[in-house]
Amino acid sequence: MTAPRRRTRAVPELVAAARAGEHRAVARLISLVEDGDPALPAIAAALARYAGGAAVLGLTGSPGVGKSTTTNELVRALRARGQRVGVLAVDPASPFTGGAILGDRVRMQDHATDPGVYIRSMSSRGHLGGLSAATPQAVRVLEGAGCDVVIVETVGVGQAEVEVASLADTTLVLLAPGMGDGIQAAKAGILEIADVFVVNKADRDGADATYRDIQGMIALGERGPGGWRPQVVRAVAVRGEGIEEVLAAVGKHRAWLEEHGELVRRREARAAAEIEAIALGRLRAHLGSLRGGTALPELAAAVAAGRSDPYAAADRLLASLA
Amino acid sequence: MTAPRRRTRAVPELVAAARAGEHRAVARLISLVEDGDPALPAIAAALARYAGGAAVLGLTGSPGVGKSTTTNELVRALRARGQRVGVLAVDPASPFTGGAILGDRVRMQDHATDPGVYIRSMSSRGHLGGLSAATPQAVRVLEGAGCDVVIVETVGVGQAEVEVASLADTTLVLLAPGMGDGIQAAKAGILEIADVFVVNKADRDGADATYRDIQGMIALGERGPGGWRPQVVRAVAVRGEGIEEVLAAVGKHRAWLEEHGELVRRREARAAAEIEAIALGRLRAHLGSLRGGTALPELAAAVAAGRSDPYAAADRLLASLA
Repeated sequence: MTAPRRRTRAVPELVAAARAGEHRAVARLISLVEDGDPALPAIAAALARYAGGAAVLGLTGSPGVGKSTTTNELVRALRARGQRVGVLAVDPASPFTGGAILGDRVRMQDHATDPGVYIRSMSSRGHLGGLSAATPQAVRVLEGAGCDVVIVETVGVGQAEVEVASLADTTLVLLAPGMGDGIQAAKAGILEIADVFVVNKADRDGADATYRDIQGMIALGERGPGGWRPQVVRAVAVRGEGIEEVLAAVGKHRAWLEEHGELVRRREARAAAEIEAIALGRLRAHLGSLRGGTALPELAAAVAAGRSDPYAAADRLLASLA
Repeated sequence: MTAPRRRTRAVPELVAAARAGEHRAVARLISLVEDGDPALPAIAAALARYAGGAAVLGLTGSPGVGKSTTTNELVRALRARGQRVGVLAVDPASPFTGGAILGDRVRMQDHATDPGVYIRSMSSRGHLGGLSAATPQAVRVLEGAGCDVVIVETVGVGQAEVEVASLADTTLVLLAPGMGDGIQAAKAGILEIADVFVVNKADRDGADATYRDIQGMIALGERGPGGWRPQVVRAVAVRGEGIEEVLAAVGKHRAWLEEHGELVRRREARAAAEIEAIALGRLRAHLGSLRGGTALPELAAAVAAGRSDPYAAADRLLASLA
């Protein structure tokens, strides 16, 4: 047993303060989530009743397509409508140092003094289930804090996007001209996760070609998850152009989700993934601690030396669980 | 119990044929690995003794940096040295369709008639532990087939790269001018996984700036894993330029790994990850099947509706494991 670290305020107090819109309490709760604090189960229990309060938007794309700028402009437009907005900038790529390199301060400059905006960079430091477990819990914190919309922004292609898609009600995939051709977009699997494509930097050479490529792939491909046909919107986020159109496409998708019972389905799938990630995180910790932490390294040494194979070793590891 | 599918040859026969250099047998074994075939434990057992026979190179980078071209040129150079080479092109981004979009035929054109080269695209279809479990096993197949070098190529930034790094003896990260600035490279966490940086398309505008950015980050940052200082090499892969220099840097890293006992350490860490992935894959399947598959969905519905929280639900799920 590790002693819980000293906290200035107990969980119910922190959650009440977050409910009341206190930024420091929200930040503290997300830090606890990120650190995998022993108080996590209590935090989750206190936040449970606020589940589903926010529309969750995922926003992803390759480095350089303009994700941060687009997020900032979406926040501006949503604030103009009077909505409370949370932003989680998720850095999936730093399990080694465990730090979100692009810090909060860089990102917050446009909205730093706005009490209706919470912006937070997250990394996977400390959390057993990794970002796949920590991010949905941070979303719950922001829901608890009364956000109407939570934007989860992540870099890159691959698993991180898949996780964003599994987390979000609506997934936005940003593209920009010259960031790779159609085959590469398809290769990245983004067609399969995007509810709305945003062709950003639409004033640049090649934007029309990118737009047509995506439209062509949508026309050729199967319909998106559940039969939704992905929307494609042009934007020049750095000038705020196209942002209203992006929000209109998001609204259209939201209406479709509700009409087809897909919103409930997605949220249950998300909850199932959360539960599973927490359970597997606990099991992983347990596997690592077997025989005082020596079981796995010894089996690994035998496999590396060719004296055993990974399946036989996994069997032996699982046998010592029982 | 599912009945094993009919196989034309039993596992020992297939492994013997792969040892003898029969391409069809190698391809069949990798397909079985990829499909998560019930014969996997037997395959792993038959291949165990060949562990560590190949130098494993990871190669990663954003879409459009020239990964496929670089891989092809590396294969050409290694073949000129008389080495047998395996290539696994890993597509981490298609768990939904489960297909590697850029197929083998596209990739194989340069080396299709060369009996000393195995090239294979892989996706995560079917495999319980996902690519993190299937890819190392495919590496084992190629080691068993007598490859001196196995190149594992993957797209993207984020988790996929981390997995490639954990799999490889030496990780190559490709960059190209204009694919995103220094902050974005840092954001993607590549500094933490790269043993060798390749600035590809080094004849283009901005290549010098990219080269300097990376050198600057290496100078500023901590040393790479275990104290190795990442090498930076310029290349124009499409013209075959810089490929020998890349291989020289790889050789230098290899010598460093051996000198510092790091090769054994990496391979044991890899084996531990494999064992853990297999064990967790089995546990995940088991969690999903509890109470005839109804336990997790019912808990998820309660969480989505705000009647429970993910931690409490995970506890209940784990309690029904016992």
